[in-house]
Amino acid sequence: MGKRLLVVGGDTAGMSATVQARRLMPDLEIVVVERGRWTSYSACGIPYLASGAVRTPEDLVVRTPEDFRTIRVDVRTGHEVTGIDLAARRAEVHNLTHGRSFVLGFDLLLLATGARPVRPGVAGSDLEHVHGVRTLDDAARLLDDAKERRPEKVAVVGSSHSGLELAESFHSRGAAVRVLEPGPEILPGFGADVAARVARAMRNAGITVETGVTVDAIHDTTMDTSAGDVPADLVILAAGVEPNSELGAAAGVRTGTAGAIEVDRRQRTSAEGVWAAGDCCTAVHRVSGASVHQPLGPVAAKQGRVAGVNVGGGYAAFPGVLGTAAARVCGVEFGRTGLSAAEAEASGFSALGTTVESAGAESYLSESRPTMVELVAERGTGRLLGVQSVGGPGSAKRVDVVAAALVGGLTLDDLIGLDLAYAPPVSTVWDPLQAAARALASQL
Amino acid sequence: MGKRLLVVGGDTAGMSATVQARRLMPDLEIVVVERGRWTSYSACGIPYLASGAVRTPEDLVVRTPEDFRTIRVDVRTGHEVTGIDLAARRAEVHNLTHGRSFVLGFDLLLLATGARPVRPGVAGSDLEHVHGVRTLDDAARLLDDAKERRPEKVAVVGSSHSGLELAESFHSRGAAVRVLEPGPEILPGFGADVAARVARAMRNAGITVETGVTVDAIHDTTMDTSAGDVPADLVILAAGVEPNSELGAAAGVRTGTAGAIEVDRRQRTSAEGVWAAGDCCTAVHRVSGASVHQPLGPVAAKQGRVAGVNVGGGYAAFPGVLGTAAARVCGVEFGRTGLSAAEAEASGFSALGTTVESAGAESYLSESRPTMVELVAERGTGRLLGVQSVGGPGSAKRVDVVAAALVGGLTLDDLIGLDLAYAPPVSTVWDPLQAAARALASQL
Repeated sequence: MGKRLLVVGGDTAGMSATVQARRLMPDLEIVVVERGRWTSYSACGIPYLASGAVRTPEDLVVRTPEDFRTIRVDVRTGHEVTGIDLAARRAEVHNLTHGRSFVLGFDLLLLATGARPVRPGVAGSDLEHVHGVRTLDDAARLLDDAKERRPEKVAVVGSSHSGLELAESFHSRGAAVRVLEPGPEILPGFGADVAARVARAMRNAGITVETGVTVDAIHDTTMDTSAGDVPADLVILAAGVEPNSELGAAAGVRTGTAGAIEVDRRQRTSAEGVWAAGDCCTAVHRVSGASVHQPLGPVAAKQGRVAGVNVGGGYAAFPGVLGTAAARVCGVEFGRTGLSAAEAEASGFSALGTTVESAGAESYLSESRPTMVELVAERGTGRLLGVQSVGGPGSAKRVDVVAAALVGGLTLDDLIGLDLAYAPPVSTVWDPLQAAARALASQL
Repeated sequence: MGKRLLVVGGDTAGMSATVQARRLMPDLEIVVVERGRWTSYSACGIPYLASGAVRTPEDLVVRTPEDFRTIRVDVRTGHEVTGIDLAARRAEVHNLTHGRSFVLGFDLLLLATGARPVRPGVAGSDLEHVHGVRTLDDAARLLDDAKERRPEKVAVVGSSHSGLELAESFHSRGAAVRVLEPGPEILPGFGADVAARVARAMRNAGITVETGVTVDAIHDTTMDTSAGDVPADLVILAAGVEPNSELGAAAGVRTGTAGAIEVDRRQRTSAEGVWAAGDCCTAVHRVSGASVHQPLGPVAAKQGRVAGVNVGGGYAAFPGVLGTAAARVCGVEFGRTGLSAAEAEASGFSALGTTVESAGAESYLSESRPTMVELVAERGTGRLLGVQSVGGPGSAKRVDVVAAALVGGLTLDDLIGLDLAYAPPVSTVWDPLQAAARALASQL
């Protein structure tokens, strides 16, 4: 008898792992248990589904259960793993359609249980018109609800980048959208410069953006907030996510940062023969060295691939994350990688950051849009520590140069001397990153 | 008495140097002698001037002679240095307006004489309607000539990226444009994949693109070519440039690769107290280690800055080039950095390249355009050696990640694990570079 791998969770991390494990171990029996209806989809595409730019949930699916069956993977959608006995190598599986449970044995286990939106602990946060949107099933529920309610007033509580994308989606459908962020700036995790630029673009588009507003209670068509009554016939929760690590933790798997499942470089958990990948687990930040929780699609894809190779008896290592994130909201692109100046100081670096506004393309071209770059480097060594960028086309992906530079240990001088691509419609002779590097070097 | 710096050539390299030298040596007397009418301009913007997207030559000027006078730099436009006596520290300067020459003494000398289009050695290549376009004065002559002739049939001989940009400019003005490239593919220096994609876009736009066609003679309204008679009432030379190094060479300064002036890391020439920067001089290729001639704006800006710091008594080093180039033609962006597989092999590497076509943005979005990435790495080590990219928005600047990776010595595995920015409108979960890296890694 061959061994059986049980994969809990059928989205990016779980399915990336599954493909690798199958490739390396043709005889491995693989069972994937997925709570929802879909596998291997682009959750980041949900705002485009909500806006109507993408027509159906199926359009966001990369590989269906049927696709996986062709590589002999037994995918059970509509099933939930409710308990795991690691010593006995048995899982309790609940069939959500028929309401019945059964026991499934396994030899190897991969936890890819993802994350869920944080629910505010206030009255009414479990009402039907209050949506946390993470999975494609969440999105389907949101769309069904929106179709029925035809909401005229939509409130987004919190201001994660996916929340802002959803704000734009509902605005584009004609709703009056109001973003309520409890903190002093929108987009926690991004700096004040990025936040201000994005907030301005959203307001110019006609979206109400308010900061320093907390929600105290949610009712059917209104919310009690620190800024008074706010009418809302649809509410979207956008205050970040937390890992679905309870299943693993209850089985005895160690959790750490933000409650996520702890993993090593090979995505191994504290339990023998148990791996974890994606939004449910931790990662090492390559600049700070700290354990972090960075629940984003590209991390899930990479960790899943690494886990799958190791499950399959190969060797692969996940080198860690850089805190990279990006989005486009109301025509403004923004991105970050590495550490902000404050994060660098908190990590023990003596760091300095500076912000420089440049033309993203030669300013003599009408298509040129201002780009703002905030660059952070270590005092003394000039080592690059991080960057944030916001502006017109190219601003999000511009941080990728610094991502490579961080891994290569490059300094400000290295960046200033770097032979970067130039053409009038896509850059300036000194790339905006280099303009920021020159300004920062002169300050250091 | 203070010392006098003579700068020969008033565009990017010369003026970048001038700014640094002035900053570091407030008492230095600085004289800039420039043959043309303008200083410190974006030559790369000339195609946009030719198309009408930029209205006047002045719009391409970053700093005027008057701007330089405010920092006490004596700029003599319309003057040409015709001879240099290094031993006597004297230059012969010709006033092009008045036709008179005079002698100018100097202590320090910076050669920033640029480059000129290669003229084919065929009959008629010096006719008035045959234009090599490098300087802003060249561009002004071209525009005046085009205004007078109102050319209906424009021939571009050769297919450098700036030549193709000019082809697009004249096409957008309503001329019938024909590109004639003697080699098997357009865009020498780029690979076959890039060439094919760009040629297709140009043809789709209505521009005739022919390869394997040599020009034997140029007449007033026609050309004799290997493909028969080609009507052309305006001809643009686009077969590359050669350095203006004769002035330096005649003075005894050593020249090397492609006839360009040899410089060291500090932009010092073989002659004491003589620096060179920009299109007239050589550079070291950071991957191959070879001396190369890369006459592009960003290199001129960086070399000029380095030369100016050193002229001013400071220390700066130019680390070398990566062979980076980029452009956008008929809506297609393309870029390159590092070595192609053939170049790598010629440089002594055992190298392998692979080409992968991906979606430049998530394919469920209508704005997604295919992006093709050709990645090259060293066998055995997996060290990245170069990349070419072609496709929709973001394709040109995408090579910048690899530029940083080349300097950092990153491998294919490093690239696969890199935490790059992701959002559905600007990338795929595995960035196209990473898709190529995964394909290449599996081949190595």
